[in-house]
Parts: sequence; C-alpha cells; structure tokens
Amino acid sequence: MKAGMEEIKNGSVTSPRGFLAGAVEAGIKYAGRLDLGVLFSEKPCAAAAVFTSNKVKAAPIIVSMKHIAGGRARAVIVNSGCANACTAEQGLKDAGEMAALTAAKLGIPANQVLVASTGVIGGFMPMDRVKKGIDKMELSHDGGHRLARAIMTTDTMPKEIALKVADSTGEYIVAGTAKGAGMIHPDMATLLSFLATDARVEADFLRKSLKKAVDDSFNMITVDGDTSTNDMVSIMANGAAGNAEINNSNGRTFQEALNRACRFLACSIARDGEGATKIIEVQVEGAKSISEARKIARTIAGSPLVKSAMHGNDPNWGRIAAAVGRSGAAMTEEKLDISLQGKAVLSRGRPAAFDKKALSRQLKTDRVQIKVNLNTGRGQATAWGCDLSEEYVTINSDYTS
Amino acid sequence: MKAGMEEIKNGSVTSPRGFLAGAVEAGIKYAGRLDLGVLFSEKPCAAAAVFTSNKVKAAPIIVSMKHIAGGRARAVIVNSGCANACTAEQGLKDAGEMAALTAAKLGIPANQVLVASTGVIGGFMPMDRVKKGIDKMELSHDGGHRLARAIMTTDTMPKEIALKVADSTGEYIVAGTAKGAGMIHPDMATLLSFLATDARVEADFLRKSLKKAVDDSFNMITVDGDTSTNDMVSIMANGAAGNAEINNSNGRTFQEALNRACRFLACSIARDGEGATKIIEVQVEGAKSISEARKIARTIAGSPLVKSAMHGNDPNWGRIAAAVGRSGAAMTEEKLDISLQGKAVLSRGRPAAFDKKALSRQLKTDRVQIKVNLNTGRGQATAWGCDLSEEYVTINSDYTS
Repeated sequence: MKAGMEEIKNGSVTSPRGFLAGAVEAGIKYAGRLDLGVLFSEKPCAAAAVFTSNKVKAAPIIVSMKHIAGGRARAVIVNSGCANACTAEQGLKDAGEMAALTAAKLGIPANQVLVASTGVIGGFMPMDRVKKGIDKMELSHDGGHRLARAIMTTDTMPKEIALKVADSTGEYIVAGTAKGAGMIHPDMATLLSFLATDARVEADFLRKSLKKAVDDSFNMITVDGDTSTNDMVSIMANGAAGNAEINNSNGRTFQEALNRACRFLACSIARDGEGATKIIEVQVEGAKSISEARKIARTIAGSPLVKSAMHGNDPNWGRIAAAVGRSGAAMTEEKLDISLQGKAVLSRGRPAAFDKKALSRQLKTDRVQIKVNLNTGRGQATAWGCDLSEEYVTINSDYTS
Repeated sequence: MKAGMEEIKNGSVTSPRGFLAGAVEAGIKYAGRLDLGVLFSEKPCAAAAVFTSNKVKAAPIIVSMKHIAGGRARAVIVNSGCANACTAEQGLKDAGEMAALTAAKLGIPANQVLVASTGVIGGFMPMDRVKKGIDKMELSHDGGHRLARAIMTTDTMPKEIALKVADSTGEYIVAGTAKGAGMIHPDMATLLSFLATDARVEADFLRKSLKKAVDDSFNMITVDGDTSTNDMVSIMANGAAGNAEINNSNGRTFQEALNRACRFLACSIARDGEGATKIIEVQVEGAKSISEARKIARTIAGSPLVKSAMHGNDPNWGRIAAAVGRSGAAMTEEKLDISLQGKAVLSRGRPAAFDKKALSRQLKTDRVQIKVNLNTGRGQATAWGCDLSEEYVTINSDYTS
C-alpha cells in the first residue's frame, strides 16, 4: 500500500488486528434490545480518553478517569438504559463492579477496564441484570458491528468507520464507533465513541492526538447545547500491526487518520440529531484566533433561530449575523462576510443582492453550508449541527416515565 | 396614600403625568397594522437606557446610545417590520433622520429622541413611509395603550403596567410597556421596553436603578438564547409629580417600584414566548455568588431538554442536574438539592423518592417552579423561561420572505 489512507468497506471497530467485541440483550431498561457491550484487546494497549466537561460527572466517568490515568486500558464495558449519574456512593460502587466483573471474565486487572453508560439520570444500575449480561457475553473478532448496534439503540443508524493507513512506521488500521444524540427515546443525550487501532503508539502522543482530534470533531458538533454527564471518547492502541512506534516525530499520518475517523463519526452524529432533516456545516475564517473561530462556529451551529430557518429553507442570514455578534468573539461589523450555499448574502457588512427564491431552493437539501469570514485574523474552525424540527420537540417532550 | 405602591388598573405607559403617546399604520412591512409609535414627555426628562450586548448593533441602537449619553431624552420613536440592522452607513443615516423628523414634529432637539426598531435584519428602512407615518401621527395623554399595541404586533398580548408609588419624596407613578419574543411572525426576536415616570429623579441614580432593575428582570428571561441586535430598555423621568428629587439617599421605594415594573414586564414576555404554554421560574440559592447563581438559573431556564421535559410534564430532574453541571459555576454534586413544584427530587446529591405520576400531574399547569440549592454560598437569583413546544419550531421555520 502507498503512503496515505483509505476507508475499509464495511469496516468496524474490530477491523484492527487483535480486537474483539460482543453485545447482549441484558434487559437493563427494556427487554429485546442490545444494551450491554464489551470491546477488548487481546494484547496490552496504550490508551487515552477524554471525558465530559460537565461538573456533574456520572459514576462510570469517575471510575474511567481513574482507570485511564496510567495511560493503559484493554477493555471497555458500555451499557444503555441507565446513565448511573447522580447516584452517589452506590453509583460508584456499581460502576466499579462493572469493571471488576468484566476484568474477571477477560482475565485482566480491573483498572484496565473503562466503563461507559448512557440513559436516564438518577436511577440505579440493575446490577443483577448487568452481571448476567456480562456472564453470557460472547466476544468475537467480527463483533464490532454488533457493538455499534448495541450502543446505537437510541440513534437511527449505526456509526462506524475503519481506515487502513500506511506511513513511515508501517501499515495499520484506525477504527471507531460512536453513539450520539439521535434519540428516538428521550432522556438519552450522551455522546460516546470508542476508537481502536492496531498501531503501536507512544502513550503520551496518543493522549495528545486524541485530544486534538476530539477538539476538531466531537467538540465542534452541537445538537441542542446540552452537555451530558456521561460523554466519553476513548482509544486503545494495541500495536498488533507490528509497525514502528508512532510518536511526535513521525505521527502526522496517524493524526490525520484519527482526525478523519473522529470527524466522520462526529458528522454522523450531527446528521442523526434528534428530528434532524439536514446537516449544517459552519465554516468560520478570519477570526482573531482558532478558539474565537470555534466559539463563533459553535454559536451559529447552535442557534435555535438559525437551525429553525435552515429547517424551513429560509435564507434569513440576519440570524447568522446576530449569532456572530453575540458569540462573544471580537468582530467588526464592517468587515463581516457571510455566504449561504456558496452565495454571498453579506459582504463587508453590507447586504448583498441575491435571489431569495433561488437561494431557498438551494437550501432544500440535506447538507447546508454556512461560511463566515471575519476578515480580522487567521483563526479558522468548522462546526457541524443539524436543523431544528418539530420532531425534536415531540421526541423530547413525550412523557414516558 | 400610605407609603408603598399599588398597581393602577388598566394603567399604561402614559399614566404618569405629562406623557403622551401615539401610533399609526405606516405600512412599513404590511398594511393594516400599527407599526410606528411615539412616546413623548411634555417636560424635559432625566433619562437612561440599556442596550443589547450583541456586537452587531442595529443602526437605531447606535443612534440612541449617542443620544442618551447626556442622560436626557424626551421622546422615543419605535417601529416594527424592519430592524434597520446590518445596513451600514445608509442605516445610520435613516435612524438619524427618524430622530430628526420626530424632533421637528415635537419641537425638541433631535438628540433628545431615542430610536428603536424591530423586524427583519438586513433590509433598509422605507423612509418615505416612515416620514408619512410621523407626519400623520397624533399624540394623546391616553395614547399609552395604543403604543403598547403598536409594539406588540408580534406578541400575542400587550404588556403594560403602571404603579402608583408613595414614599418620603412624594407621590408619583412608574409605568412601562414592553414587547418580547412572542412572535407570530418569524424574524422578530427583539426585546423592547419603554418605561416612564412622573417622578423627579436624579439622572445618575436613574441610570444605576435602571441597570439594577434590568439585571434582575429582562436579563433573567430566556426564550431561545438568541440575543437580538436591537434590544433596548429605556426610562424617562419628567418630574411632573412635583416630588422631592429621588437619589441614592431616598430612592429605595423607587427602586422597588422599578424592579416590580420590570419584573412584571419581563415575566409577561417569558410567558408569551413563541409557542409557550407555560412559564418556568427557576430559583437558585446557595451559589458562590450572585453572578454564579444567575448563570445557573439562566442555563436551566434556557436548556432545550429541560424546556421540552416541562412541556411534556415530565419530572425528568436529571436534565436540571446536568444543566447545573454544565453552567460553568462552582458546585459540589454531593451538596446539590433540586425540587420541582416544591417536591424534593434530589437531596444532597442523592435521588429522592417521589411519586412520578403525581408530580407529572402537578406539572400540568401554566406555571412551573424549579428550585436549586447548591449549599455552597449565599448567591441567589431567579430566572424565567418558557417551555419548548412544537409550535416554536413551526413559527420559526415558516419560509415567508
């Protein structure tokens, strides 16, 4: 294979060598659906994870933060149907036990197991069912698709990707799966993503690359601005590909592959936002800094008025300008450019003449592109969101407790 | 009258002595509805105003900021149907001309006129219609209700209040009207409020009291988190009541009256949020500081997941806990108390036992109360919002350009 990367058709998180996965119907909240899964590496791994910034952190997040501290993990246990958040000491005990039970089954130390949960906040984990579920779980080398389905119970489509990469260190695979906020069922808004690679990667570099990839992907999507107590993205690198160790000096291609995998999974989540009919990509250029560009892009992508207008194919760019203005970022109105689907609607702070009906027709698509140039610096960023439809509210206001 | 205050039945912004108002159908965007109004004081006034924090400021905001700088103003001209925002030099020229035309009609200097606009961003003001409208406008002492209707074109109900006050300085009236985000028509999200009092008030004290009243009222409501380019709250005090001048040493009752008027108008706006079926009051106590309490209260009141849950009468308190956690304010999960309609649902970080069906029935009302105690300090604040209904999206996604 030439240097570079290509997508593996029908790939999954177990496409990299040495990874197994499995999932069962444990009946945590409902019977008859996959709700408990495990991802496992046959070999020891360098590992890294990023967690929710919410100050209310679910018990599995607290346990996983402790376990990942040493930069090593070989397995993830994940469930839906119960977030195990706001559950005090009992919750911590239960999350710890989930790690211990998984570790015992796999024959590894408990602190090599990460725990992730999603579901209603405030309920305790039904540990008897979790225990039975772990007991009967069967892992296999092609279990990745099953795991992707197990964590997608609340999404409308599975989200998985595998990239075959060749660089100066050798050939390896970077793969991942994710669940998002595409909730058929209310109460579940957690973002979870599990990545795996058979590359050999130096632990410190792995941590930094994951952070970088997440900042430009999962941290740039917004469905409704509500940050879950349970968000988690993890990666395990088991070195089974036999490549030379990847580190800061030779890791450029690996970083690109990781960025691409994360971006693909993040966009899949945005597209699958609750009730969404289209993805909205917001590109910001010319901001004072990257962090200001990010702030602006996220504010636009998250504005209910912008999201509603895009849902209705309304080229109402004033709402975009107003979102830029309230984002808190430095700006000069006289320098602001805005375009919609490639069509200039505001040029240097002046309304541009355009055919409203024609532009409205161009917005009738499942992919909307908003471009903003502040013309005040070199910071740029891209955010992804989705339109806001009546369906979002219907999904989230159904009383089902 | 005893010291204190009482509401005047059927009062309006022209209830205070020496104020006149009027409104006409100028046809700025549509024919056949009031869309241009004037509020005028026969006597010179001390005046103050607060403006949008959005960095994209509409032309009328920029003109009004200049005019209010001296602490004096005798008139406000306000229109709906065109925001005159993102309109560059032409917009500034038009807003300046609106002030000049109004001043000429009233026989006062142009810099004594404040200008306010609301409507679609990005269109130029049809100055011929505005000019004809100002020409034919008739002002009267009972024109307050007509002005309240003129600015409510996008709301579902007029918002006005007049309070008769007696204190050590004498007897006077504090009155006001407001328009909010209760938009039948999309594109209009501006918050405007005009207050008037016949009290004699020292200009610097007036400025500070208005800021204080707005911080605890208009700045604590949220409908959708989108801050308009055109928001403005102003007050004119003409001294026609003949009371002793109100200042920092004797202004306590005046401040209370102003707080009450602003709070009433702000709550009316929240209740009349687009598509809203109920008002949500969020009381936060025990935060590290008042500003942290405000941040938490606003985050909860603005959370789409909390708003959707309340719409569906779902006592899903986990979403409230998650909103507290992501607000950015200091908190300790083990100390957190949450109650819904007076019923404890989380006590010191532990889920409280409660009857879900009974609490859901209690949520079937047009007034929901959420209380949060962080038990870490003495900061407290109250925010008001509304539920999120399918109707909000329908209103905002209709393509009407």
